[in-house]
Amino acid sequence: MEIMKDGVGETSYAKNSSYQQSLLSKAQPYIEETIVQLYCRTFPQCLTIADLGCSSGPNSLFIISELLKTINAVCQKLGRSPPEFQVFLNDLPENDFNTIFKSTPNFYEKFRSDNGQEFGPIFVAGVPGSFYNRLFPTKTLNFVHSSFGLHWLSQVPQGIENNKGSVYLAKTSPSNVYKAYAEQFNSDFSVFLSLRSKEMMIGGCMVLTIVGRRNSEPPSKDYRNSWEVFSKTLRDMVSEGLIEETKLDSFNLPYYTPSIEEVQTIIESEGSFDLDWIKTFDNDWDNSEDYANREFVHDKIKSGEFVAKWMRAIVEPIFVSHFGDSAIEDLFCRYAKDVGDIYAKERPMLTTLVICMTKN
Amino acid sequence: MEIMKDGVGETSYAKNSSYQQSLLSKAQPYIEETIVQLYCRTFPQCLTIADLGCSSGPNSLFIISELLKTINAVCQKLGRSPPEFQVFLNDLPENDFNTIFKSTPNFYEKFRSDNGQEFGPIFVAGVPGSFYNRLFPTKTLNFVHSSFGLHWLSQVPQGIENNKGSVYLAKTSPSNVYKAYAEQFNSDFSVFLSLRSKEMMIGGCMVLTIVGRRNSEPPSKDYRNSWEVFSKTLRDMVSEGLIEETKLDSFNLPYYTPSIEEVQTIIESEGSFDLDWIKTFDNDWDNSEDYANREFVHDKIKSGEFVAKWMRAIVEPIFVSHFGDSAIEDLFCRYAKDVGDIYAKERPMLTTLVICMTKN
Repeated sequence: MEIMKDGVGETSYAKNSSYQQSLLSKAQPYIEETIVQLYCRTFPQCLTIADLGCSSGPNSLFIISELLKTINAVCQKLGRSPPEFQVFLNDLPENDFNTIFKSTPNFYEKFRSDNGQEFGPIFVAGVPGSFYNRLFPTKTLNFVHSSFGLHWLSQVPQGIENNKGSVYLAKTSPSNVYKAYAEQFNSDFSVFLSLRSKEMMIGGCMVLTIVGRRNSEPPSKDYRNSWEVFSKTLRDMVSEGLIEETKLDSFNLPYYTPSIEEVQTIIESEGSFDLDWIKTFDNDWDNSEDYANREFVHDKIKSGEFVAKWMRAIVEPIFVSHFGDSAIEDLFCRYAKDVGDIYAKERPMLTTLVICMTKN
Repeated sequence: MEIMKDGVGETSYAKNSSYQQSLLSKAQPYIEETIVQLYCRTFPQCLTIADLGCSSGPNSLFIISELLKTINAVCQKLGRSPPEFQVFLNDLPENDFNTIFKSTPNFYEKFRSDNGQEFGPIFVAGVPGSFYNRLFPTKTLNFVHSSFGLHWLSQVPQGIENNKGSVYLAKTSPSNVYKAYAEQFNSDFSVFLSLRSKEMMIGGCMVLTIVGRRNSEPPSKDYRNSWEVFSKTLRDMVSEGLIEETKLDSFNLPYYTPSIEEVQTIIESEGSFDLDWIKTFDNDWDNSEDYANREFVHDKIKSGEFVAKWMRAIVEPIFVSHFGDSAIEDLFCRYAKDVGDIYAKERPMLTTLVICMTKN
């Protein structure tokens, strides 16, 4: 197992991509390398790929498209006919699969015009369900990919009613809260590995991109800060009577950012996979295209708004269902301002872990 | 190859089912028998089933659910563990898969509570695309089912501009029109068989339910009449200036009801499948639950409205896209009345063909 650190400028960011998309693009060359190695080890007649937590939108097929392109290029180089591709896109049953499905005819057409008519065929299917349950028949998958899904837990850990005034693990959280979160992740990730190990063929590869931590101790600049800012924003709204205190006290996110060591330990202890490598990337919360130009003439308002926008895209549904519709607009406005205040002092970073393993 | 005629009361109609659903229920016991025979010939670890043209709604999983139940019962009888089930639901990319997917958690739960916790697992996936294209990887399907899809052609036949004043093949249509429709069906159905033959395993079975004709010559009471009534309704609206004549003249449905002989000939000539049997069923256009009670006190208005309702469910989108939104309400009101006028004279019937074949 090899642990590599992020080098600056390793990949070019995809244009007009979302925040998560641009983080993913850092991992992309490594994911591509993994699938090429997998393909060249076995040359299957049909390469079966699952993308777990595919979400919905024009970008849902982006990483898949890049992986298929890579295989196509390899086949051309080797003078081989490309394999058939069975692509399973998975997300929860509430996900908007219709939008993805409507984009498939254009996807197929563009793919053929970019990569040659003889390419493929590609068969896209949607699979509704939680990846904490079985999703696929036994030993049917060659390659599993999941980005920004596995830091979401199957449920809020139990017994953390004393985590008052914070939406997640905070520096001020009682010690049982940290333990409960870590144990929930341990249990969920073990279940996930065990389920996937049944569905994957021996020698199949899985690459997971998740938000995590470099060290076992919570670092001062880790992703949790973005939740600590949220907690601060919400506490302000409580003190102004805009949100009930009990509402805030009873809310905890089903979320956990594991350390490299935790991930390693769980994979080893579950035992179905050999861990090939973990790579870590540090990412500024604000990675907007003109950020580099703004570095010296620091525009904290713009950065705050940028972060609030992508955070809103991720957490709005879960916040609305707990705090209600009415407070949301105000919440994200205030959150943008509070993030901006951090940018006046420092550049907060988010760490992603890219984990590659092989089914043994 | 065996051709059987429908006996009265062969199956009980599913309660509260749609018109097509109730027609399908006549075929259901034969479809069940076919999948049981298939299962018992091979006892696969995973039974892979595709439903082509699944549509959307609470009934999309109905026939699948019945087939799985049947296999479950057989396994209990034989003291075998049931297989895994991979179920592919296919329809065009515009189909509302979201509604089906949202119903899957309840479907799984109900299935387990009805059939035992040890049953399954069942893996449902959605596949967007036309069944006149490849949809699945090579040799991956055990069983293919399609109901009320294959009488829809891939396109309106070319060269039938002279079929004026009718939306489909009519008694008054020039002879080239009949030929063009028959040839389009021949070509489409041959392509369909050839595509499926690549996707199915050898020994796999396919059962298709389509609207068809008992005889090679158009019978006076066949399904085409329901389109002839539509043509009559539209001609009336043209003569009243509500619809432009050129609009009607330029419209033809991409639809064909083949005869038993045509189906037989195409399957034999395409050559990938052995035809096991074709069964034919005659169905009253009005099969509403209280129809039997209304037989002697004939309520033609009710029957007209019943037929207009299910016809509208089928053809509204295609009519709206050609004739526009504004005429639709009036069209179906008038159509209901025109169908009622037929019921004053006779009970019009629709013939369905259920076709079973095995991949050779």
